[in-house]
Amino acid sequence: MTDATRYPLPDLNTLPDDLKAKILEVQEKAGFVPNVFLALARRPAEWRAFFAYHDALMTPETAGRSSGLTKGEREMIVTATSAANHCLYCVVAHGAILRIYEKKPLVADQVAVNHRKADIPPRQRAMLDFAMKVCLASHEIDDADFEALAAHGFNDEDAWDIAAITAFFGLSNRMASFSGMMPNPEFYLMGRVPKQK
Amino acid sequence: MTDATRYPLPDLNTLPDDLKAKILEVQEKAGFVPNVFLALARRPAEWRAFFAYHDALMTPETAGRSSGLTKGEREMIVTATSAANHCLYCVVAHGAILRIYEKKPLVADQVAVNHRKADIPPRQRAMLDFAMKVCLASHEIDDADFEALAAHGFNDEDAWDIAAITAFFGLSNRMASFSGMMPNPEFYLMGRVPKQK
Amino acid sequence: MTDATRYPLPDLNTLPDDLKAKILEVQEKAGFVPNVFLALARRPAEWRAFFAYHDALMTPETAGRSSGLTKGEREMIVTATSAANHCLYCVVAHGAILRIYEKKPLVADQVAVNHRKADIPPRQRAMLDFAMKVCLASHEIDDADFEALAAHGFNDEDAWDIAAITAFFGLSNRMASFSGMMPNPEFYLMGRVPKQK
Amino acid sequence: MTDATRYPLPDLNTLPDDLKAKILEVQEKAGFVPNVFLALARRPAEWRAFFAYHDALMTPETAGRSSGLTKGEREMIVTATSAANHCLYCVVAHGAILRIYEKKPLVADQVAVNHRKADIPPRQRAMLDFAMKVCLASHEIDDADFEALAAHGFNDEDAWDIAAITAFFGLSNRMASFSGMMPNPEFYLMGRVPKQK
Amino acid sequence: MTDATRYPLPDLNTLPDDLKAKILEVQEKAGFVPNVFLALARRPAEWRAFFAYHDALMTPETAGRSSGLTKGEREMIVTATSAANHCLYCVVAHGAILRIYEKKPLVADQVAVNHRKADIPPRQRAMLDFAMKVCLASHEIDDADFEALAAHGFNDEDAWDIAAITAFFGLSNRMASFSGMMPNPEFYLMGRVPKQK
Amino acid sequence: MTDATRYPLPDLNTLPDDLKAKILEVQEKAGFVPNVFLALARRPAEWRAFFAYHDALMTPETAGRSSGLTKGEREMIVTATSAANHCLYCVVAHGAILRIYEKKPLVADQVAVNHRKADIPPRQRAMLDFAMKVCLASHEIDDADFEALAAHGFNDEDAWDIAAITAFFGLSNRMASFSGMMPNPEFYLMGRVPKQK
Repeated sequence: MTDATRYPLPDLNTLPDDLKAKILEVQEKAGFVPNVFLALARRPAEWRAFFAYHDALMTPETAGRSSGLTKGEREMIVTATSAANHCLYCVVAHGAILRIYEKKPLVADQVAVNHRKADIPPRQRAMLDFAMKVCLASHEIDDADFEALAAHGFNDEDAWDIAAITAFFGLSNRMASFSGMMPNPEFYLMGRVPKQK
Repeated sequence: MTDATRYPLPDLNTLPDDLKAKILEVQEKAGFVPNVFLALARRPAEWRAFFAYHDALMTPETAGRSSGLTKGEREMIVTATSAANHCLYCVVAHGAILRIYEKKPLVADQVAVNHRKADIPPRQRAMLDFAMKVCLASHEIDDADFEALAAHGFNDEDAWDIAAITAFFGLSNRMASFSGMMPNPEFYLMGRVPKQK
Repeated sequence: MTDATRYPLPDLNTLPDDLKAKILEVQEKAGFVPNVFLALARRPAEWRAFFAYHDALMTPETAGRSSGLTKGEREMIVTATSAANHCLYCVVAHGAILRIYEKKPLVADQVAVNHRKADIPPRQRAMLDFAMKVCLASHEIDDADFEALAAHGFNDEDAWDIAAITAFFGLSNRMASFSGMMPNPEFYLMGRVPKQK
Repeated sequence: MTDATRYPLPDLNTLPDDLKAKILEVQEKAGFVPNVFLALARRPAEWRAFFAYHDALMTPETAGRSSGLTKGEREMIVTATSAANHCLYCVVAHGAILRIYEKKPLVADQVAVNHRKADIPPRQRAMLDFAMKVCLASHEIDDADFEALAAHGFNDEDAWDIAAITAFFGLSNRMASFSGMMPNPEFYLMGRVPKQK
Repeated sequence: MTDATRYPLPDLNTLPDDLKAKILEVQEKAGFVPNVFLALARRPAEWRAFFAYHDALMTPETAGRSSGLTKGEREMIVTATSAANHCLYCVVAHGAILRIYEKKPLVADQVAVNHRKADIPPRQRAMLDFAMKVCLASHEIDDADFEALAAHGFNDEDAWDIAAITAFFGLSNRMASFSGMMPNPEFYLMGRVPKQK
Repeated sequence: MTDATRYPLPDLNTLPDDLKAKILEVQEKAGFVPNVFLALARRPAEWRAFFAYHDALMTPETAGRSSGLTKGEREMIVTATSAANHCLYCVVAHGAILRIYEKKPLVADQVAVNHRKADIPPRQRAMLDFAMKVCLASHEIDDADFEALAAHGFNDEDAWDIAAITAFFGLSNRMASFSGMMPNPEFYLMGRVPKQK
């Protein structure tokens, strides 16, 4: 395990204003600061690019683009990819968001352990099959893989979304694992307990 | 092979002004437009994030940061990573830049086929060993890997550089392979023939 | 995914008396019948051997034997092994028991994604390293592996426990995955929420 | 290689009466005591469960069940599984039994080296293909695998037999390899020389 | 990297006459002595067998045999095989010859990085798919692989050529890598620059 | 399985005189014609090179060279290599010769299943470790591997022998597997039964 003190989290007040503002906004919304926001902030230029890329893919509407994937489907790709890459931070953090978006408290654990056994429709199974091939053997992708997607209604823009999310979180997974980033304890339980009225 | 017409390159004149300006600048400098600039431009928000990330890592001085790695070493990591991911575009394009920066016409082919046999000093061998572990088994990185780097004078900031470049080009490799991006013919010969006076 | 109706769960009342008695006892204690008890019950002779083996390893005191591993450590081995084998049923069910025994709501997810990053002491890390080698490359186990265990106080009887639990759940994982066994929904949340007083 | 004296074989006379009785019965029939009977006997509760499971699968008639697999086919699965797991004890011991049951002196070596080249009918080839997938990638088993079996007349009960034998001997293989269990010299030649009249 | 002085190249004048004559002939034709001719010459009997085998496969007309593969196709198989085996000497040396025979300055780099993306016709893609299976999983070759070749006009003699070239250069690759054989600098640029008139 | 009639064995009388003479000599000595002699004879030029190479490595005294490896050790390398490549013909045929040369009826099966468990001295274990690395990852061989050999008295010429035998039989294995070559039944029993006086 990477020594936890190798890349200490910076103090929020030492960060550039734009990072600080965005982080406070996230804290306001989530109730805590997910560690990735602080861990990457030690290098502001990389931080800005990372989250700009993240937002372009995960909240395409902010970039004036619509996507054929739902928010939950995008998080499902992240969870499956992160499990394939054995990235603790991303499986736990994005598994939480997946549960919330899909309103399915069990789906994140299922996708993380074996997406083939998850309780998801064939469309999402095909989506994850494509993502896993991009994750593990992108050089073997060929037209047959696009056709398998098309059989479930995914067009080439959707394929780009799936591939790009998989590729981006492959980057994220490697950064988190190499640097010893640990998920905030809050993530583990999020979306597991139905809200009471 | 992915159908070459699946993601056609956009016409430069249809692109947003900032993309167009940067692309023309690259063309001015290189003499041609590397395909990655057009291939990713079909999604401007992703394009902007991609190249911002690229520049933060590959030209850190533009972000007001110095790096313990030389420009040639950074391209060496890209070439080795791209070969491990079997990415044709990136091996050819960045191999060319590697040859130019290192002023070694043979090094790119050596690193791409087997970095263990490349004619490079032990320091660069250790750098590539670390990069390959981040590329192929990031979840197994531990303190011993950092110590192996330190034995060659790489500190934790250098390790971050190596890991981040490897992770970023793992993203780039997957995008290029999945979308069928082909290297411009110009790259293949660059840096191979010593300039005559 | 294996067709869920291929191996339907038998009706409890059609089972032999000894199976029925044990299953009712488990139901009494757990509040529900874990699916493995019904899924394997369609073959009573195999059922009896499976649970006899399970009990000999997991509750050695019932066989008049003490073990150098704690109950929590035994479940930790099961969770890591089942994740390596991508067995949804066992990761979810035994991850739940692991959380309860260790009184650590986060440990099961950590061990399942990447035991090297789990918040566990070096002794348990060494235990899981040995288990993973038995799981994935048992033919390469040699004296050095036993010595690595001994450095953390595990003797040869403890090594046998680790290996046997890993081997037994490798069997269990294959049965669950091949037959499409799904974890009961109850398991997913168990041990995650601290009990209120 | 695991130190041969790490888990010494117990003296037969120190074993519980039921183990002793069964072992003497085996010795009477085989002419010698296969090492697995002594090696596992150091833990009587595990021994009893192991052989109960073994008998439930390998001699189903003793459990009042008939099987769609012949005795030779069951041993063929054991031999192929044990070779895939590189388990010396089980390849040698069960290869011997396979030769005897199938009355084919060459088949065990063929199945152990490459079952695709073995001189066996297509039905047994399909059986071993299914076994190998359970052995090596059980999480990827899906309906297509059952259909491939069905094309050769194997129903879902037969599939269960194949999977369970594969899974059980995966357990056996790991125990034998980890503990350094060596096959008795007698096994190597059994079934190779046609009996003379 | 293997110590470069472990197997020093012998002096040409110390070699047996037949080796010397052949090497001078090659030097006359190529303008330099490819290192493989000297590296293997330290063992003349092996040298003679190696080049006799090489010629039987690569210049079949010298053995009174015609081949369904062109000279360029044979070198294409060598380049792909050598890349799969990470053999620096053979990728560089035979990539050069491939460029010359095929009169395609880009094809060697393409085939070495990812033959699926190379700018080659479907027939050559099928040829390389077969070669890669012989290279990486020869025990899994079956009739379907021959049928895939036949669909592109390759008969069983052509299949033998593909397999034998792949197998022979697997031998060559291992010898070059193990002994630290380095490609002559001349090879890197050969066939890359179109000849001027 | 490759169709057995794809590459039929040629009639001995149709072969060139030198092949015929050598084959009759082998038949005289062995009592039968090992299939490899006929299977490869359909291409006389390749046949001659194959057996010249074979003899240069396996009977170096015929080439006026002595070797630091015994005849049995050379066959042990062949058996381990062929098992790693899942080559039925070579495991069975060379396993037979190994038993005879080493006068150890059990050693071939042990080496084929798991050389780490074979009843061989540490020197031969080190020899096979080196061979397995040449067989499976020749590009990763480095000075440490030669040093591990040297610790057991193997010099660089011995290392060459080990590597060359491994490489040559990797070629042989691929040819046998791809073409569906089957071992003669006579091999299976050779060297297993001690001769009676």
